[in-house]
Amino acid sequence: MPPLITLVIYDIEDDKLRSEVASFLKSKGLKRIQYSAFIGPLTDSQRIDVVAGLRRLTRNSSKVNIQVYPLTPASYNMRMVIGIPFYDEIGGEELIVT
Amino acid sequence: MPPLITLVIYDIEDDKLRSEVASFLKSKGLKRIQYSAFIGPLTDSQRIDVVAGLRRLTRNSSKVNIQVYPLTPASYNMRMVIGIPFYDEIGGEELIVT
Repeated sequence: MPPLITLVIYDIEDDKLRSEVASFLKSKGLKRIQYSAFIGPLTDSQRIDVVAGLRRLTRNSSKVNIQVYPLTPASYNMRMVIGIPFYDEIGGEELIVT
Repeated sequence: MPPLITLVIYDIEDDKLRSEVASFLKSKGLKRIQYSAFIGPLTDSQRIDVVAGLRRLTRNSSKVNIQVYPLTPASYNMRMVIGIPFYDEIGGEELIVT
């Protein structure tokens, strides 16, 4: 299977854990598109690795909800964006995947 | 086209506008799955109507980013969820779409 653009959205109450999850997703090559959303191409094995890492990071925490959506090209091409692109608060680089 | 499960995620700085967007999405029959994420089946014309409504609601606001992802059944079936389901803070009903 070719890599699929994979959307990860999260709802994490604890500030420290939320930052750790963001750093982890960035370390896996995903790009931030919203405060609590990352996206990027992942192969099946990379996606399994990311999900395993997220489970590890959050296994002792309650009030965590993370959802991972592998998008078929058809799904990704239908996406619509309203408003301004999200700029990473550190790098200032544009992080919309086009 | 049959309805597609459609994921809407948003990043909205203004508290009042964020609540308005949440109420609007709920009024369109979508279910909250995270603090800033709703999901539900929408036909093409319903999706156009939702996007138009979101543009109207947010047209005078900066610091708004809303992304709408129509999911093919293949995409939706590949989703993975980590952690606890999100419970609506008002109704207490379980809002995970299964």
